[in-house]
Amino acid sequence: MSETRTPFGIKAFDKMISGGLLSGTANLLEGAPGTGKTTLAMQFIYNGITQYKEPGLIITFEEFPQQYYHDAMQFGWDFKRLEAEGKLKIVFSDPQTAIEELSKIDGQFVKLIEEMGIRRVAVDSITHLESLAIDPYELREIERKFINALKRENVTSILLRENDSLLGPVTQVTDKIPFIVDSYMILRYVEIDSAIEKAICMLKMRGSDHQKDIRCFKITGHGIEVEQKFSGREGIMSGITHSTPQDAFVNAFGKK
Amino acid sequence: MSETRTPFGIKAFDKMISGGLLSGTANLLEGAPGTGKTTLAMQFIYNGITQYKEPGLIITFEEFPQQYYHDAMQFGWDFKRLEAEGKLKIVFSDPQTAIEELSKIDGQFVKLIEEMGIRRVAVDSITHLESLAIDPYELREIERKFINALKRENVTSILLRENDSLLGPVTQVTDKIPFIVDSYMILRYVEIDSAIEKAICMLKMRGSDHQKDIRCFKITGHGIEVEQKFSGREGIMSGITHSTPQDAFVNAFGKK
Amino acid sequence: MSETRTPFGIKAFDKMISGGLLSGTANLLEGAPGTGKTTLAMQFIYNGITQYKEPGLIITFEEFPQQYYHDAMQFGWDFKRLEAEGKLKIVFSDPQTAIEELSKIDGQFVKLIEEMGIRRVAVDSITHLESLAIDPYELREIERKFINALKRENVTSILLRENDSLLGPVTQVTDKIPFIVDSYMILRYVEIDSAIEKAICMLKMRGSDHQKDIRCFKITGHGIEVEQKFSGREGIMSGITHSTPQDAFVNAFGKK
Amino acid sequence: MSETRTPFGIKAFDKMISGGLLSGTANLLEGAPGTGKTTLAMQFIYNGITQYKEPGLIITFEEFPQQYYHDAMQFGWDFKRLEAEGKLKIVFSDPQTAIEELSKIDGQFVKLIEEMGIRRVAVDSITHLESLAIDPYELREIERKFINALKRENVTSILLRENDSLLGPVTQVTDKIPFIVDSYMILRYVEIDSAIEKAICMLKMRGSDHQKDIRCFKITGHGIEVEQKFSGREGIMSGITHSTPQDAFVNAFGKK
Amino acid sequence: MSETRTPFGIKAFDKMISGGLLSGTANLLEGAPGTGKTTLAMQFIYNGITQYKEPGLIITFEEFPQQYYHDAMQFGWDFKRLEAEGKLKIVFSDPQTAIEELSKIDGQFVKLIEEMGIRRVAVDSITHLESLAIDPYELREIERKFINALKRENVTSILLRENDSLLGPVTQVTDKIPFIVDSYMILRYVEIDSAIEKAICMLKMRGSDHQKDIRCFKITGHGIEVEQKFSGREGIMSGITHSTPQDAFVNAFGKK
Amino acid sequence: MSETRTPFGIKAFDKMISGGLLSGTANLLEGAPGTGKTTLAMQFIYNGITQYKEPGLIITFEEFPQQYYHDAMQFGWDFKRLEAEGKLKIVFSDPQTAIEELSKIDGQFVKLIEEMGIRRVAVDSITHLESLAIDPYELREIERKFINALKRENVTSILLRENDSLLGPVTQVTDKIPFIVDSYMILRYVEIDSAIEKAICMLKMRGSDHQKDIRCFKITGHGIEVEQKFSGREGIMSGITHSTPQDAFVNAFGKK
Repeated sequence: MSETRTPFGIKAFDKMISGGLLSGTANLLEGAPGTGKTTLAMQFIYNGITQYKEPGLIITFEEFPQQYYHDAMQFGWDFKRLEAEGKLKIVFSDPQTAIEELSKIDGQFVKLIEEMGIRRVAVDSITHLESLAIDPYELREIERKFINALKRENVTSILLRENDSLLGPVTQVTDKIPFIVDSYMILRYVEIDSAIEKAICMLKMRGSDHQKDIRCFKITGHGIEVEQKFSGREGIMSGITHSTPQDAFVNAFGKK
Repeated sequence: MSETRTPFGIKAFDKMISGGLLSGTANLLEGAPGTGKTTLAMQFIYNGITQYKEPGLIITFEEFPQQYYHDAMQFGWDFKRLEAEGKLKIVFSDPQTAIEELSKIDGQFVKLIEEMGIRRVAVDSITHLESLAIDPYELREIERKFINALKRENVTSILLRENDSLLGPVTQVTDKIPFIVDSYMILRYVEIDSAIEKAICMLKMRGSDHQKDIRCFKITGHGIEVEQKFSGREGIMSGITHSTPQDAFVNAFGKK
Repeated sequence: MSETRTPFGIKAFDKMISGGLLSGTANLLEGAPGTGKTTLAMQFIYNGITQYKEPGLIITFEEFPQQYYHDAMQFGWDFKRLEAEGKLKIVFSDPQTAIEELSKIDGQFVKLIEEMGIRRVAVDSITHLESLAIDPYELREIERKFINALKRENVTSILLRENDSLLGPVTQVTDKIPFIVDSYMILRYVEIDSAIEKAICMLKMRGSDHQKDIRCFKITGHGIEVEQKFSGREGIMSGITHSTPQDAFVNAFGKK
Repeated sequence: MSETRTPFGIKAFDKMISGGLLSGTANLLEGAPGTGKTTLAMQFIYNGITQYKEPGLIITFEEFPQQYYHDAMQFGWDFKRLEAEGKLKIVFSDPQTAIEELSKIDGQFVKLIEEMGIRRVAVDSITHLESLAIDPYELREIERKFINALKRENVTSILLRENDSLLGPVTQVTDKIPFIVDSYMILRYVEIDSAIEKAICMLKMRGSDHQKDIRCFKITGHGIEVEQKFSGREGIMSGITHSTPQDAFVNAFGKK
Repeated sequence: MSETRTPFGIKAFDKMISGGLLSGTANLLEGAPGTGKTTLAMQFIYNGITQYKEPGLIITFEEFPQQYYHDAMQFGWDFKRLEAEGKLKIVFSDPQTAIEELSKIDGQFVKLIEEMGIRRVAVDSITHLESLAIDPYELREIERKFINALKRENVTSILLRENDSLLGPVTQVTDKIPFIVDSYMILRYVEIDSAIEKAICMLKMRGSDHQKDIRCFKITGHGIEVEQKFSGREGIMSGITHSTPQDAFVNAFGKK
Repeated sequence: MSETRTPFGIKAFDKMISGGLLSGTANLLEGAPGTGKTTLAMQFIYNGITQYKEPGLIITFEEFPQQYYHDAMQFGWDFKRLEAEGKLKIVFSDPQTAIEELSKIDGQFVKLIEEMGIRRVAVDSITHLESLAIDPYELREIERKFINALKRENVTSILLRENDSLLGPVTQVTDKIPFIVDSYMILRYVEIDSAIEKAICMLKMRGSDHQKDIRCFKITGHGIEVEQKFSGREGIMSGITHSTPQDAFVNAFGKK
C-alpha cells in the first residue's frame, strides 16, 4: 500500500501532498499567465537534481533553452552547468515530434531518458498539443498517448497547462486532460485588499486523500515558498474572492 | 411495492438511499476530475463481491486493468486476486465494441455476465459514448440502447460520467443521459475555509422519495466514508458556496 | 365566464389553480431530471380514472409501457389492471408517427380517444418533437400542430418537457412552446440547508389570475403531496436560492 | 407641443404615461409567456371601442379568432358581438401577407382600416416577423417597413413581442425593434416571498419624460389592474430581485 | 496646451467635461433604446446654432427629417425654421452613400459642410455602418475612414451608437469604435427604488483627465438636464445596481 | 542575478516593479478604451529620451504621427522636436509590413533601431496583429515571431493591447499573448462612489516577485501619476467592485 514519492523539495507543499508526487506518474500543473508554472516546474527539476540526485529533462515547445538558463539563474539555479554535468537536458521541440520521439522505442526522448537516467520530466507546455487535433476525442487520444509514453518510461512528469481564466471563477474544465492525469495542481491569482496574491491547490491526486488546502505562495529570490491557508476568504478557487461575513464583523467590531 | 436493493456497503450512504440502489437499474455517477467517481465505483464492485457475494464487472474505455489493480490496492482491495477467483472481471474495451457486444444475445459481455453470474457492473466512463454521435438525438438513442442492454441483463450498473464543472455552479445538464437513467448521483468539490472538500448527493432516484441531503465525504485508506450534511453553507450544488448569513453572525457574536 | 376544470386530485395544488386545469387545454409541465414530471403526469391520469371517471391515455416516446406499470405500482397505482379494464391506454410511439396519427381524422390516436372516451392525455415527452426540425420556426409549427390536434379532440393534456437547468437560474425559455400552451407548470430543485428539496409553480395559466405561489412538494408512497410556500427564501425560480437577510437576522438573534 | 393621447382605459397606467400612448405611434409590448401581453392588448382594443369609440383591429399570426373570443369573454369582453357590430376585426394572417397587405395602397389591411375607421391595432405577435429574414439588417428593414406602414395609416398600434427571459436578468435587447418603435413596454415576472408577481414598466417613450415606475399589476376578472410600485425590492428589471438591505433590517428589528 | 471646446450648452455637463467636447473631434454617444441619445444629439445641434452660432448637420440612416422636426418641437426646438434659415440641415442617407459622399473632395456632405459653414454634425446612428462589413477588421477600417473624413472637415461630431445592454452589466465593448473615437459617452438605465432612472458618463476623453462622475439626468420639456451623482449606489455602470451597505445601515438606523 | 532595469520615470510605479521593466524584454500593456494605454506608452518613450537618454521608436498601426504630436503636446511633451533631434521616430505601418521589416536583418525597423540607437519601442497596438490569422495557433506563432524580433534587437518594448472588457469582470485571457510576453500590465476602470476611477496592476513579471498592488492612477496635465492602493474595495481586477463589508460597517458606525 506504500508508494514511492517524488518530492518537490518545497517543504510545506510536499507535506500537503503526503511527501511528494507519486513516482512514475503524470501530473498536471495549470495556471494563468504569470502565476509561476514554469518557476515551479524548474524548481521541481532543480531540487530533483541537487537534493535527490534525480536527473531531469525539460521539453519545451515555445521558449529556447537560453530563456530557461536565464530565468533559472534569477533563483540561483545554474541550469547551464547542470546540463554540462549531464544532470539536466533542456530540449526545444514541437508537439508532433515530441510525441513521435516519445512513442518510438528508440526515439530521441526514450534514448535520452535511458542514457541520462532521467527521473523527472517537465513539459512546457502541454497546451501546445491542442494544436494537433480539432476533434476533442482525437485530442484526448493524443494526450493519453503522450502521457502513457511518459509513464512507460517510469519518469515522474509535470505537464504545464495554460489556463485562460485570469481572475474570477474557474468555471469549466476546458480540456479532458484533467481526467487523464494522476494529479492536478492549480495556480491562481487571488485579489486581496487591493493586491494580487497567488494560491496553489492540489485538487486531484490518485490514491488516498491528501491535504486539499488552498495555500498562499510567494515567488522569492530562491524560488517558490508555500505559506499558510488564506484566512477569512471565500471563493478563492470557485469564484470571486471576498471576505467571509464573520471576518468582516470581526474586523469592524473586534472578536467576542 | 417493496423492491430489492443493491447496497454500496457504505452505511451512511446506503441509509440515505433507502438501503441501496434499486436492483437491476442503471445509475449515473457524475463528477469533476478527482472527485472520486472511480473510487466509489470500485468500492461498489468490491463490497458487492466481498460483502454481498455478487460478482462484478468493470468495463473501462480508457485505463488498462493494471491501473485498477494498482488503484484498488491503495484501499486494500485485491482486484487481481478477485479476478483470479472468478468473482471480478475488468475488461478494457471501446464504446463501439461495448455496445455491440452488449446488444448481441451471444455477445462477449452477455456471455461473461451469464457465465460469471455478474450482478454489478461499472462503466468507466459513459462519457466515451459521446464520441459515437454528433447529433444529440442519435446520441440519446445510443445511450438508451446501451442502458437498456444492461437492464435486460438485470445487473445493477453504475455509469461514470465526467463533469466539466470544476467548482462553482452546475448550470446545465449537458447531455440527455440524466433523463434516461434510474438514478443520478453527483460528486462535487466544495470550497470551505480555504480548503477543498467533497460533497455527494443522490439527486434523482426513480420511485418514492429518498433522502436528498448533500453530504460531505472523505476518501480514506479504506475507501469512501460518507459523513454529515454541510452545516451553515448555501449554494453547494446550485452555485458558489458561501456561509449563510446566520452562520456568519453566530460565528462572530456567538449564539443567542 | 365559468369554465370546466379538470382537477389533478391533489388538493393543495388544485386549490392553487382554481380547481384544476382548464378542460380541453394543452398544459406544459417542465422540469429537470428526477423532479417528478412523470410521477405528476401519472397521478393526473390515475386520479382522473379513479376519482373523476375520465379515461386516460399516455403517449410515450422513450420508455416502454412496462416501465410505467412498474413505476406507477410503487405508488399503489395498478396501471396494468386499469388498462385491462379499458380505462387507460399506454402507447409507445415516435414523434413523427404520433403527429400523423393525431392529425388524421381516422388516425390511431383519434380513434383511440373516441372509442375509449379518453378525457386526459399525458405526453412523455414533448421534448422529443425537437428532433423533427432544426429550424425554430418549423419546430414551432410542428408543436402548434401537435397541440391543436390534441385540443381539437377536446382532451385535457399534460405535455412533459425536459429542462436542462439542474439547479441555479432558469435564465431562458429555450423553445417557443411555453408561448403556445394554455398553461405552464415548472418543477424545480431547490437547495435548502444542505439538502435538495422540490418546488412547483404554475407560472402561466390562460384566463384570470391563479395563485402563483412557489410551493414545496414531496413524492411520498402515495404520489405527489404539495405543501406550503417556502419561507424566508429568495431566488427559488429566478436564480440562486438563498436566505432572505431578515430571515438570517431572525435566526441568529430571535424575532423582535 | 401638446399631442393627442390614446389611453389604455387603465387609470393607474394611463396616468404613468401622461394620459396614454401618443396617437399614431407604434408601441412595443414585450414579455415572457403568461405575463399578460395578449390580455393587455385585448384590453387596449376593447376599451378603445367601448370607452373611446375607436374601432380596433387585431392581426394575429398564431391563434385563430376563436381563441380571442374565448379569452376575451373571460374578462366579460364580448369580441364576437363587437365584430358583428363592425367595431372590431380579428384577422388571422401570416407575416409575409400582412406586410404586403399593409404596404399596398389598396391592400386588405389598408382597406379595412379605412372602411372601418380603425384607430387602434394590435399585432400578436411581431416576433413572427423574425421568421422572414436571417440577416439582422434585412430583418430591421422589414420591421421598419411594417411599422412605417402602420404609422402611415395613422393608427395607434401595440406590437406584442415574446421575451425568452423567464425570470432573472433581461441582459440584452435581442432584436433591433426596440430602437425603431415609439415606445417600449415590458412585462416581467418577479419572485417575491416565494410567489410570482407581475411587473409593468414603460421603459422608453418618445418625447418628454414619462413616469418610469416599475409597477405591480394583477390580472383580475375584469382585466389588468395596475397597482403600486414594488417597495423594498432591488433588481426587478435589471437582474435577480432581492430585498434591499434596509428593508431586511427594518423587517427584522422594526423601524427606527 | 489649451484647446478649443465645443460646449453642449448643458451647463452641468459642460462643466464635467472641462467646457465641452474638443473642437474638431469625433465623439461616440452610446445607449440602450430610449435612453435619450437622439435628444442629446439634437440639443447639441440646437444649442450650437442658437447659443454658439455654429450651423449644424444631422445625418440620419433610419428616420426621415419629419421625425426630427416633430421630436425636436416637443422641446420647443423649431428645426424646420432653422433649416429654412440655412443654419441646419437634416439629411436622410444610407451608410454606403454617406461614406462615399464624405470621402470625396467634392462630395455632397463635403460641399454642404463648406457651403453652410457647418461646425457640428450628428450621425444617427453609426450602428448602421455595421451592415457594411462582416469582417471586424474591415469594419474597423470603414469606421476609421468615416471618422477621419469628419475630422478632416474639422467639424465636431457626435456619433450615436445603439447599445443592446438594456439594464445590468455592460460587459463588453462589442465593436472597436470606442478605441477609435476621441471621446466616449454612455447613457444608461439605472433601477432605483422600483423606478428606472437615467445615468450619463463620459468614460473616455482624449487629453488630460476630465470629471468621470456618473450623473443622473432627466429629459424635461426643455431637453436634457444633468443633475448630481447618484449617492449610495454601487455598480451603476459596471453591473447590477444596488445600495451600498453603509447606505442601507444609515437608512435603517440613522446616521451616527 | 542582478538585471538591468528600464524605468518608466514614474516614481511610484517604478518602485512597484523593482525599478522598471527588465531591459530587453517585451511587455504587454492592456486596457479598455480610454484607460490611458497610449498616454503611458508615450510617457515611457518621452521619459526614456529626456531622463535616461534612450532614443525611442513608436510603431503605430492606426493613428498618424500627427495624432501623437498633438496628444503628447497636451502633456507638454514635444514629440515633433524630439523627432527633429533624432531621438524619437514615429512610424505609421501595417502589421504585415511591420513583421517583415522587423524580421529581415536589413529591414526598415532593424536599420532604424541600429542607426538611431533605439532603446525603447512602443507598439500601438499589438491587437492589429490579430487580423493576420484566424487560426489561434498560427496567430500565436506570428505574435511570438514579432516579439522575438524585438527582443533580438535588445530593445525594451511596450506592446499595447485593446481589452474589450469595459467594466466588470475580466473573465478570460482572450489571446495567448499574455503567456508569451515577459510582463503583463493591466489598466482598468473602477466604479467608486458613482464615479469612474482608473487602476493599474502589474500582474505578471518574469523573474522574482514584484509588488502586485492594484494602484489608483490619474492622468494629469503632466501625464500619468500613480497613487495609492484602493482601500476598502473588493473585486477591482477580478469582478464587480464593491465596498468590503468591514468598510461599510466602519463608514456607518465609526471605527472601534
